[in-house]
Amino acid sequence: MLTIASKAKRFNCITVKWSLDVQQLADKRAVLIIIDGMADRPLIDHDYKTPLEFANTPNMDRLAKGGLVGQLDPISPGIRAGSDVANLALLGYDPAKYYTGRGALEALGAGMELRPGDVAFRCNFATVDDDFRVEDRRAGRIRKGASKLAKVVDAIKIDGVPGIKTIFKATVDHRAVLVLRGEKLSRMISDTDPKEEGAKIAISRGLDGSEEAKRTSAAVNEFVKRSHEALREHPLNQERANKGEKAANIVLTRGAGTIPNLPSFKSMFDLRGCCISGTPMVQGIAMAAGMEVVDVKGATGGIKTDYEAKAKAVIEGSKDKNFVLVHVKAPDIAGHDGDFKGKVRTLEEADGLVGHIIDEVDIGLNYVALTADHATPVGYGAHTGDPVPIIIGGPDVPASRVLKLSEASAARGNLGRIRGLDLMPIITDLVGRSRLYGS
Amino acid sequence: MLTIASKAKRFNCITVKWSLDVQQLADKRAVLIIIDGMADRPLIDHDYKTPLEFANTPNMDRLAKGGLVGQLDPISPGIRAGSDVANLALLGYDPAKYYTGRGALEALGAGMELRPGDVAFRCNFATVDDDFRVEDRRAGRIRKGASKLAKVVDAIKIDGVPGIKTIFKATVDHRAVLVLRGEKLSRMISDTDPKEEGAKIAISRGLDGSEEAKRTSAAVNEFVKRSHEALREHPLNQERANKGEKAANIVLTRGAGTIPNLPSFKSMFDLRGCCISGTPMVQGIAMAAGMEVVDVKGATGGIKTDYEAKAKAVIEGSKDKNFVLVHVKAPDIAGHDGDFKGKVRTLEEADGLVGHIIDEVDIGLNYVALTADHATPVGYGAHTGDPVPIIIGGPDVPASRVLKLSEASAARGNLGRIRGLDLMPIITDLVGRSRLYGS
Repeated sequence: MLTIASKAKRFNCITVKWSLDVQQLADKRAVLIIIDGMADRPLIDHDYKTPLEFANTPNMDRLAKGGLVGQLDPISPGIRAGSDVANLALLGYDPAKYYTGRGALEALGAGMELRPGDVAFRCNFATVDDDFRVEDRRAGRIRKGASKLAKVVDAIKIDGVPGIKTIFKATVDHRAVLVLRGEKLSRMISDTDPKEEGAKIAISRGLDGSEEAKRTSAAVNEFVKRSHEALREHPLNQERANKGEKAANIVLTRGAGTIPNLPSFKSMFDLRGCCISGTPMVQGIAMAAGMEVVDVKGATGGIKTDYEAKAKAVIEGSKDKNFVLVHVKAPDIAGHDGDFKGKVRTLEEADGLVGHIIDEVDIGLNYVALTADHATPVGYGAHTGDPVPIIIGGPDVPASRVLKLSEASAARGNLGRIRGLDLMPIITDLVGRSRLYGS
Repeated sequence: MLTIASKAKRFNCITVKWSLDVQQLADKRAVLIIIDGMADRPLIDHDYKTPLEFANTPNMDRLAKGGLVGQLDPISPGIRAGSDVANLALLGYDPAKYYTGRGALEALGAGMELRPGDVAFRCNFATVDDDFRVEDRRAGRIRKGASKLAKVVDAIKIDGVPGIKTIFKATVDHRAVLVLRGEKLSRMISDTDPKEEGAKIAISRGLDGSEEAKRTSAAVNEFVKRSHEALREHPLNQERANKGEKAANIVLTRGAGTIPNLPSFKSMFDLRGCCISGTPMVQGIAMAAGMEVVDVKGATGGIKTDYEAKAKAVIEGSKDKNFVLVHVKAPDIAGHDGDFKGKVRTLEEADGLVGHIIDEVDIGLNYVALTADHATPVGYGAHTGDPVPIIIGGPDVPASRVLKLSEASAARGNLGRIRGLDLMPIITDLVGRSRLYGS
């Protein structure tokens, strides 16, 4: 344990690094790094190693060696979690209580105004043939011009269902958000995205027999049809065709959601939080929780992101915060793409970010936690229900003495097996802001 | 990741072993082996070893070495579970929600028709003296002639309580089932089995003050009295007396239950399940869950069972299934009898069954899980609330490198500590049939 003298010295050193005034220094701080889809399964073609075992991650290893290391089930053992429910749980919000669909989180994160009663959708620009069969669910992962396409989609009017306004915005790569605004809407409707290539687009249907769901699904079906009419002759698609690229000639919808009613992060954990992420859904959760969302130029939420800028934002952009959420998307994308080398590379890049953070955030005084929202094994190209590694480094925690962070070493760590909802109470307690239960 | 070629090869090899057509082969399969009462405590008389540590179990060890190994609390830590609630939990049914008494599960497993409103009881043939003091709760574990005795018990008419019909059937050894059918019955009544030898039989009482419980307990008390009248002069008991065996001169009741309302196993886990067990209660749960119950000649549910026949049933009887539950009763019986050597022997016999299964069920492609429903330490002769070992072997799971399966090595395994209700979600996720929670 640190003596008063050495603490004062550390305060001094922190003052320089975080540029904080003395009063703010009374707090211990925590940084939570979520590496999206980090965990994997042993691969027969890679000597039964996982990408994390294969990757050179000296900074994660350093954090693990001196810190608590264990396994974390985002929801509970075996449950295959989407990123939305997993991130809610990691931030201390029980999805069983607070989850109201992904679309709303995406809309918030995209900076769209969302009102009670609105229903929002996660959308993809996609490629269909004349028979509405999906050739590419991501329109060749279109990276340029999506905002131009979004303009014509935003202008769509729904004639068949009266009193519904559509608002549409492109976000990252092929991704976009649709908001339906009007009377009597429901999120209890099915997706138009068939979620597999070669299949016809799906017809949205009401899921609960209500008039509202019927009406909302009719509006969505018309929207999708009109998006095809608006996009198929778009000059940008002709350009793409000339270059041999897939046309972004339709918008597919999924994850209907309404604005979630989250108690503020401050009220739950007595922490002033901020969020550094290029992923709209994560930004949306942070906004719904009343955290500050730091806009980092270069943090794209895509496979290529500027980790230097992200690391700088953790240090600079959080001067008046004592909790910083840093979300790294790229390893999940590599996992979905089944790209072993890409996953190794993105994990190594994320490790560089971790290095910057633990160098700057004095972990003799503050805490750095690192985990994943779920596993996205490259052999599956999808989320699985495996536990993910969790590390918590900082003052007064027992050292795991784990030498190399991996799924296997996490299973032999000193933290045991915890759940996503356990994480924030542990962090809150370590930084000294937990409330006593009982008396 | 398996290449297509190596997958095809594995499919091929599986085709021979499981005799399945190609379409069925698209599924991964899972076998869950439940070794009843397997876990134990270290015994001072046996060099602080448990029966499992003492037993030669090369096949369980092989499965453990290459698979996930951990501890499982059937319900939650320290909770001493009956086999009924434990097996419900292991199959994914929360007993807090679905348990309606053991008697009904026994009745279903015994092939008796059970209607809503019926109350069923687990029964023992027992030995009482003229003063209704219990000399032997199991009538010397009577093995022959119980069905003859059951006939005279089935013919009993209850005169004191109008409108109640009794249906009685012998099951395994000294065990039997009673069903009460009629208006206004309740399962909220106490047992007539005092559960200790030397005590007088208990008088059944209503537990909730209701008229229905009062009426049902009166019927049960009359039934027990009449069973003594019907049995004490039975020729078979005179024969037993001549041979120096205990008379089966009364029927004791316990575990009043009504038919449980389980959602189907298929609807919960998207798995086509079948059950191989000689134990009526386990068969009853499987039936209530809509699983196929495979009748295996020689699988007795007693201390002597035909493991070859059981193993064959796993392979042959499950052609169109992707989930096979195999339940082994004998180690629990040895535990209840306080028989260390017997427990070691039955564990070694069960290990032979495990060997047959893992040889035939290609665990390069399919999964084999092994656990217990609870501990039955020989030093206690009763269930205890200890965690039990759990192993899950199959493709893509990290190897525990545990060399010998035991309670102690399980506590140091790579799966951590999970609960009974976590098991089916983990298995469902591994075989690739889990639904995504969230998006």
